[in-house]
Amino acid sequence: MTVTSPRGFRASGVTAGLKPSGQPDLALVVNDGPQHAVAAVYTSNRCKANPVLFSQKVTAGGGARAVVLNSGGANCFTGQFGYETTEMTAAEVAAGLTATGNEPVTASDIVVCSTGLIGVGDQTWRDTLLGGITPAINALSATGGEDAARAIMTTDTVPKNVEVSVGDCTIGGIAKGAGMLAPALATMLVVLTTDAQLTPEELDTALRHATARSFDRLDSDACMSTNDTVVLMSSGASGVHPDLDAFTQALTEACQDLARQLMSDAEGAAHNIAITTSGAASESDAVEVSRAVSRSNLFKTAIFGEDPNWGRIVAQVGTTSAEFDPANIDVTVNGVPVCVASGPHADPETVVFTRDVTVDINLNAGDHRATVWTNDLTHQYVEENSAYSS
Amino acid sequence: MTVTSPRGFRASGVTAGLKPSGQPDLALVVNDGPQHAVAAVYTSNRCKANPVLFSQKVTAGGGARAVVLNSGGANCFTGQFGYETTEMTAAEVAAGLTATGNEPVTASDIVVCSTGLIGVGDQTWRDTLLGGITPAINALSATGGEDAARAIMTTDTVPKNVEVSVGDCTIGGIAKGAGMLAPALATMLVVLTTDAQLTPEELDTALRHATARSFDRLDSDACMSTNDTVVLMSSGASGVHPDLDAFTQALTEACQDLARQLMSDAEGAAHNIAITTSGAASESDAVEVSRAVSRSNLFKTAIFGEDPNWGRIVAQVGTTSAEFDPANIDVTVNGVPVCVASGPHADPETVVFTRDVTVDINLNAGDHRATVWTNDLTHQYVEENSAYSS
Repeated sequence: MTVTSPRGFRASGVTAGLKPSGQPDLALVVNDGPQHAVAAVYTSNRCKANPVLFSQKVTAGGGARAVVLNSGGANCFTGQFGYETTEMTAAEVAAGLTATGNEPVTASDIVVCSTGLIGVGDQTWRDTLLGGITPAINALSATGGEDAARAIMTTDTVPKNVEVSVGDCTIGGIAKGAGMLAPALATMLVVLTTDAQLTPEELDTALRHATARSFDRLDSDACMSTNDTVVLMSSGASGVHPDLDAFTQALTEACQDLARQLMSDAEGAAHNIAITTSGAASESDAVEVSRAVSRSNLFKTAIFGEDPNWGRIVAQVGTTSAEFDPANIDVTVNGVPVCVASGPHADPETVVFTRDVTVDINLNAGDHRATVWTNDLTHQYVEENSAYSS
Repeated sequence: MTVTSPRGFRASGVTAGLKPSGQPDLALVVNDGPQHAVAAVYTSNRCKANPVLFSQKVTAGGGARAVVLNSGGANCFTGQFGYETTEMTAAEVAAGLTATGNEPVTASDIVVCSTGLIGVGDQTWRDTLLGGITPAINALSATGGEDAARAIMTTDTVPKNVEVSVGDCTIGGIAKGAGMLAPALATMLVVLTTDAQLTPEELDTALRHATARSFDRLDSDACMSTNDTVVLMSSGASGVHPDLDAFTQALTEACQDLARQLMSDAEGAAHNIAITTSGAASESDAVEVSRAVSRSNLFKTAIFGEDPNWGRIVAQVGTTSAEFDPANIDVTVNGVPVCVASGPHADPETVVFTRDVTVDINLNAGDHRATVWTNDLTHQYVEENSAYSS
């Protein structure tokens, strides 16, 4: 259940030597066709990494042969030299695929993703990265997806893979990082594959729908990365053109599965929190309220302390522009209605905490709802992010 | 150097019994005139506490005789009962001042401020609060300002006082909390006094100028309180009408002094961070960029770890709508230019850290600049806010 589950894909994960730890740091996912359609979404950060600047041009054309991903360096704010490193990486992959395949591949067919420390990318780093590409080509296999998932890990503690079926087609995926698309924590990289026969336009429509309802609603620590990339490739190897709505639904499930895996492995988290706002006048109101709560450090530390502090929740609701009556807000934590009609209700002491926490906010202003997923703010988060330069 | 430094003011701080610790929790600052002009700014949180809802009406009239402040309960989201508690508090203070003074005072002459846990404010709490008012009236003195400063403390470790002279006039102040007006950490309450002869309109103009360049640029943890209040009273007891520009400048200095005291005592902070953005196309661009950096948990944990991680700084710059060229940003930490023209420059290892940290960002896009003050994100912050229900 990974990127090589759908027919028509090979993958690999090897050690180029970019990580001091010697762990795998270079991954390759190749689309063997017969079709080579691609769609992608990228970080909305205006300070974009070189691989993002390069890959945007590749995927704009609607076709790609492969995605090459490295951990151990973000190649961001590394100037023209860094951009050239990305171009050389793509060219090296294209040359390797041309040499081992049946048709010519060019650098403009290759999507490049990088993750790691910003500002890293000197001559030694470039040489190390390029030196890993031939081994990665040689290691390609139809069962290599999990190796690829492992090679893109940074602070992740477990690799993330997914597989979803839709009729006779399969969707596979790998992911790293813990965060959302925009904004994002440490870089989030996601590669999705499918053997469905779909045009680049259909892939793009499905991907935007799916990411808007999965990664875009994961807000671990409100920090937007310079390198976030979600790329979806279709090989068409199933020979089947699925119903687009069914495919989009399945793709959304796959993305939500990966998003939950990311949240569960977020840096230093002790609780997974699902914040659902209902009774909203619009879906965007519901998202705004849930997201505002997910970004409160006071709320997040309270959950770490297993304190159902609803005062910190309503204080965040009050910072939004959503439609509501400040005198008529309900808050339920893990099923206990601690605040009803904007006043204290059930005894907060009766709330039972486990790893998974649900916060339900009812604005009593309409019929719309939305959930945002986040984590608590813990000692471990502070430790990892103060001691580790990422 | 406190609220009783200017002529025409008395103050007190007593223990009503709202805090389990038995520490002082009720403060009173009385303006004995001859004039009773007032101006105030309040939280922009839409979920406002009852004392804010009440006091907004009082200060809208431009006159006030006293400010009564309690810690040990925010009286927020306590419904109509809580609002009536605020009204009764004001009425009790008015009755006490009428009984001990020369002219009648009404509840509509009294500003009320509360701070502590949201949702707290039952009958026992009301009775305890009201019971403290007569002792507070009896304790009023022309040297009571520091007692008042102590009685409004919650998680503060030291009381905050200030005094600034402007010609023959004096400005005094007290403050509690650690945060900004909008948004704000735990509730920030500030009482400023002056013996200058100024109209409510002049006070309002000066106060808005001063708070916009002091408390509004303090962003400790991006959480907006339901109770924030800054109130400025003038007694006119100096008999002097100062130049308004000079007064505004002095008031701004007083507010910046208190803002720095708040930052230095912020919950769990190990570093005071001044983030200055220069070379901005506008002052609002500079504020937006500095504030975006001040809200990054990744940046704040890096500073806790004394890691001049400029990648986390530029990643935040990229989230803003400010005018800049992503290829031409400079970042200097404690005087060391770690990033020049959007690339690595001086060795980050050479940055020397002390309690005070300066981050200077040059957008190279104009002549404007602004500074936002914040703190690092520490284990102590997590500990205080997970273990303490506030």
